[in-house]
Formats: sequence, C-alpha cells, structure tokens
Amino acid sequence: MTVTAAQGFTAAGIAAGIKANGNPDLALVVNHGPRLAAAGVFTSNRVKAAPVHWSEQVLRGGTVSAVVLNSGGANACTGPKGFQDTHATAEKVAAVLNENGPGEEHNAGEIAVASTGLIGVLLPMDKLLPGIETAAAALSENGGEAAAIAIKTTDTVHKTATVSQDGWTVGGMAKGAGMLAPGLATMLVVLTTDADVDAAVLDKALRSATRTTFDRVDSDGCMSTNDTVLLLASGASGEVPAYADFAEAVRKVCDDLARQLIGDAEGASKDIRIEVIGAASEDDAVEVGRSIARNNLLKCAIHGEDPNWGRVLSAIGTTRAAFDPDRLGVAINGVWVCRNGAVGEDRDLVSMKDREVRITADLSNGGESAVIWANDLTAEYVHENSAYSS
Amino acid sequence: MTVTAAQGFTAAGIAAGIKANGNPDLALVVNHGPRLAAAGVFTSNRVKAAPVHWSEQVLRGGTVSAVVLNSGGANACTGPKGFQDTHATAEKVAAVLNENGPGEEHNAGEIAVASTGLIGVLLPMDKLLPGIETAAAALSENGGEAAAIAIKTTDTVHKTATVSQDGWTVGGMAKGAGMLAPGLATMLVVLTTDADVDAAVLDKALRSATRTTFDRVDSDGCMSTNDTVLLLASGASGEVPAYADFAEAVRKVCDDLARQLIGDAEGASKDIRIEVIGAASEDDAVEVGRSIARNNLLKCAIHGEDPNWGRVLSAIGTTRAAFDPDRLGVAINGVWVCRNGAVGEDRDLVSMKDREVRITADLSNGGESAVIWANDLTAEYVHENSAYSS
Repeated sequence: MTVTAAQGFTAAGIAAGIKANGNPDLALVVNHGPRLAAAGVFTSNRVKAAPVHWSEQVLRGGTVSAVVLNSGGANACTGPKGFQDTHATAEKVAAVLNENGPGEEHNAGEIAVASTGLIGVLLPMDKLLPGIETAAAALSENGGEAAAIAIKTTDTVHKTATVSQDGWTVGGMAKGAGMLAPGLATMLVVLTTDADVDAAVLDKALRSATRTTFDRVDSDGCMSTNDTVLLLASGASGEVPAYADFAEAVRKVCDDLARQLIGDAEGASKDIRIEVIGAASEDDAVEVGRSIARNNLLKCAIHGEDPNWGRVLSAIGTTRAAFDPDRLGVAINGVWVCRNGAVGEDRDLVSMKDREVRITADLSNGGESAVIWANDLTAEYVHENSAYSS
Repeated sequence: MTVTAAQGFTAAGIAAGIKANGNPDLALVVNHGPRLAAAGVFTSNRVKAAPVHWSEQVLRGGTVSAVVLNSGGANACTGPKGFQDTHATAEKVAAVLNENGPGEEHNAGEIAVASTGLIGVLLPMDKLLPGIETAAAALSENGGEAAAIAIKTTDTVHKTATVSQDGWTVGGMAKGAGMLAPGLATMLVVLTTDADVDAAVLDKALRSATRTTFDRVDSDGCMSTNDTVLLLASGASGEVPAYADFAEAVRKVCDDLARQLIGDAEGASKDIRIEVIGAASEDDAVEVGRSIARNNLLKCAIHGEDPNWGRVLSAIGTTRAAFDPDRLGVAINGVWVCRNGAVGEDRDLVSMKDREVRITADLSNGGESAVIWANDLTAEYVHENSAYSS
C-alpha cells in the first residue's frame, strides 16, 4: 500500500513515454487532507537539479498538496529551460487536479516535483504533460504500488514500507541505491502519514530519521544532484501521536527503505554493515565508517570474500578521527582478526559466504558509535555504469 | 640505469624467497659518497608501516648510506615485532656492508628501509636476512635495473627514469600504481643524484617535486600505509647545480615516474588527465580535481567511453571550492560538452578511443589551476583486488 497505506492519499503510476522502453515513468501522489502538512530533505550536492531547487522552495511553506515524480530524466544541469519545465510540470498538476477534483484547491506553489535519470538532458515535455492527465485520471487509494514502480530506474524491485500503530500509519516508497549526503544513483523517497501532525513535527521527525538511516547508506560514495525525501501528512486519521512514537515510526520506515536500497544496489553481491565503536564522538564514528565504506580496495576484497583487515586499517588511517593506531581493533563477522593494530585471531576463522558482511572497527577511544551500510564493488557494477549513459 | 645512473651508487635486486613464486623481492641501493645526503617524503596515512616509522627517523638526520627495499610483505600493522624486524634488517645491512666494503662506515641509523606487499603479515626474516648477504654480494654500478625489478608487486613493468645535465644526473626507480597522499597500492620510489647538494636542498627539491607529481596521481583514491619516496645524493660528480636546474631535474624524473605509475595502474584501460582551470586558488583546483578523480560512476563511464559530463558536475558539486553551478564548464578531449552548467557542444563529437582521456573543468571563478591524473574503473581492477589478498 506504501504511500496510500495512510488515509487521505491517492496515487498513480503510469507510462508517459519518457522512457524509451515504454516502462512506467510518471508517478503522482495526492494529499486529500484535511491537513496538507509536509517536510523535505534534499541532496547536499551544490549542483542541484531543477526539481530540487523548485521543491526546496515549495517545502519552505510547509504545505504540499501533491508530488509528481518522473523517472527517465534527471532534469539536472539543464539551465533555465530545465527550471521552466519543472515549473510548467507543477502548474500542469495543479490545473489538472483542480479540474478533476472539485472541492480541492491546488496551486503550483504547493506541488513538489522530483526527477531521476540521466543528467544534462531536457525532459520530453510533449510526453510528460499529457502523462500528468493520464496519471490524474488513474489516481486511486490503491495506487501506491503503481507509483512505486513508476519511479524505478536501475532498481530491480520497487521498494515500499509501512508502520501502523494506534489508528495511524506511516508508509512510503523509495527508488535508487544510495543516500542523501552523499548518494549514488538518485534516491527519491515519498513518505505519507494520516497522523494529525504539523509541518514542524514532520520536519523534526524526518531530519532525525534520515540522519541515521538514508544518510548512513553509502553504496558507492557518489552524491546525486536529485536526492529528495518528502514526508506528507493528511491528518485523516484524526489521531495525534506522541512525538516519540511518531518519530520512531518514521525512523522505522526510513530504515526499512534504506536497507532495501542497499539490498538492491547496482551490481552488488554483498551488503556490508560497518559498525564503528569506541569513538570519541559520533562524528568520528561516522567519518571512520564512511572512509571504510568508500575504500575501493576493501570493497573488492569483500566481494572476493577475503577478510583483508589491513585495508580497513588503511582506510581508518586516512581520517581525522581521534585514535591511537596501536589500539585499533577490527572484527569481521564477529572474528577479531586485528587487535591492538596488529594481527589478532586467525583470519581463516572468518566465513563470508552470506550476503551480509559485518565489519566492526573499534577505535578504543571513547563510548560513541555509528553504523554505516555499504556494498561491495563488483564487475557487474562497472558493467552497469559503463555500458550505457545513466 | 635508474638509481645507478648517477655516479657513486651501486645497487642489486635478488630473489630472497619472500615471495612464494620465487620472483625477485629484495633490492639494495648503496651510496658510496663522498656525500651521503638524503631527503624523504612518506605516506600521510596515520596507520604507518614499521619501515615508514623507521625511515622517517633515519631521514631526520639527513644522512642515508643505503636503502633496503623488499616486496612480498608490507610489514604494516605488525606490532612491536614488525618494528623489531625492520630494525634488524637495517642492522644486518650495516653489518654486511661494513664487512664487504672496507673504507666505508655504515651504521643502522643511516639505513632506510622500505617494504611493500600484504598488510598484517610478519616478514619471513629467516629468508630476508640471508637475502641481504646475497644482495650485498651482487651490488654493482649496473644493478639499477635489477633493483627496479625486485620491488615490483602487481606492476606489469618496472619503472625507471633519468635526467642528465651539465655533468650531473638524477635517476630513479618506482613501483606501484598510486600516490603519496592519498595513494593506492604502495608506491616506493628511490631517486639518486651525483650532484653535490646537501640534505636541505634535497628536501626542498623533493617536496616541491612530489607536491605536483606523485601527490597528484589518484589511481583509486586509496592511501597506502607504506608510501615512501627517497632522494639520495652522492656528490660524486663534483658539480654544484643551480637550485632551479636541480629542482627541475628532480621534478622531471618524478613526473616521468608518476606517469608510468598511472600507465600501469591495476586493471586500468584509460589514463585520465583532469585539468581544473578558472579556480580561485590552487587548493580549490586540487580539491575539485581529486573529487572528479575519485568518482566511481565517472570512472566507469570513462571505461565505457561515455562522455558523461553530468557525473563530472555532480562530483564538482560535492566540494567546498568556490564556484557558481551556473557558470561551470566541462570539456572532454577538447569538446566543451557542458557550458554554463548546462548542455554545451554535441557529446557525439567526443572521441574517447585513445588510452589518454582529457577532462577540463572550468570553475570560471579565478586564474588558478591544477592537473590530477587518474584511471578508469574496470572489471579487471575488481578482479585483481578481489581474487586474492594483496
């Protein structure tokens, strides 16, 4: 049910012809209220796609009545024309929804837009604009899955998650295999809830959730120009959850979707859970985790099921985190192959047959920790990203 | 002739049995004076191999009478025993040379040690120490090439370079495919000269040269625990070059060797020359160049001969350099495929058949520039780094 699991939302996913192969490429999510509260988190890349510039402005108002998403083109690095196209897309959505849904008042300034696909190519507006009419006609309380399918690019499966509790629900859909800051293949996420919460609560819960979920997924270290995570509240359940309960539900849905992104990352054969412990600060733990997550030599070793802990230490050594090299420890799948910066338990004790590989790095320098999720580096990743433009 | 091109040096390369396959794995370079001046530059990785710790101390004195180098084991993350092994290696070299070469006085505190190979494994000292005797017996004024061969690990060819001028010479050998800070597969470089210059001049010339050569080679973004570059002067030519001439000769030899490292990087099919122009500062230019050099998605695209300039912009956008996204320009092999942050010339005009690919990124924000060399990312790189421990 995804974005339509919560009451007050309809959605649709259709093929507008933006993708040359005829696959679904346009999704629409509409909030029918009574609330239209919203929050958003966007890529921290300084080169931002036109729809990111647009939606950042929309979200400042804290009100979003609909989200339109397209795959098949990122509309990034497309200059003034690209921004005009995003604007025209929002105007079209507002016009079509006003025409179709009497009693609702949509205006372009409250329509969020998200795009994903190749950078540097203008969108085929002659296909996208008529597609919005088709999508609006297909809107349904059961349309969440079709919407999740329509935003796929290199995803092999569509990703959805839902948490329900005490009469209210948080649901969502995601595409991509990456993260917010930085992130790989564009990540687009739309979350909806029928809890009766305002934009300030949504913003706080969303930032808190993304900081420890999407922001700690590092599939290939590359940051997208288009990453967008939106959380929309309809208030249709009439329930006002305690903040802690609501925030935890949002975190759970984000965590679930983030794990699905890593599990479907381009060409990956291993999901790597990197836990940094014994850090002087959470920032240190995150910096060390990211450095390990991005070390191509280590990512290759994991692919080869080689418990090459020397590459972990060499990655830790490039950071500014507080640690003494002679006190570092590394465990791979629970075996402490490195202790006190030198050889520990026998590396032959490590089994790496499973898809999930757990690396624990102990800085022995404090009580803080963090978990980063990454993938291995494979020949399939190279193929997928070299054989054609994406 | 490499390290023995300059007068006053002998060298040898032999198989001590450190490598299981029986290939040459031990090199010795001896300075016979009259000067024993030296300078060194080492990895900036905070996890340093035992020989790096040792040689950093040796170089503080500005005097080096010999360098012993082994492949087949990095002696990194080997704890106190690893450091003892490095110390014992230097002691053995001093003892053997004193025995063999009457009239010369060697002491361990003036013997530099360098190692390369797998991290986290102790060296087989029962093979290494007798190997030093064999190497010392093989020392010759024509031994430079054998030494260059003995330090190879995954190198497919050995790397040497020489510049001669006005009666003095700078020559050198290198192994690896990476760089100093940060660096990939351990880079070991030994340069020799018969110019009559002191340690302070050597240090200044070496730091100046490495800053714009080895430090700007970024094959895979991974920094080694063992990178070492040494420059030894014998003064045997009796010539005292002007500083500018000497520094330029050292730079030329470093540049030549650095290009050879990139040309032989693991699994690479393309050498990528990234020139950042229009930067507000050289630091900005280097930061942007490195960010482009390390973008796995772009490295895959280059492998696929795809002029995917969007991935260049997305890499620039992750930096803190001063620029306006709407003024960025990107040329690939001379074709300005991106202008003013948007579509420029037709990307179909770009030919990427040659091994060398030139990317120019114009920040349009000043007059500074920098060149970084990188490689593409290939299935062969993944294979070479996942199929066995290295």
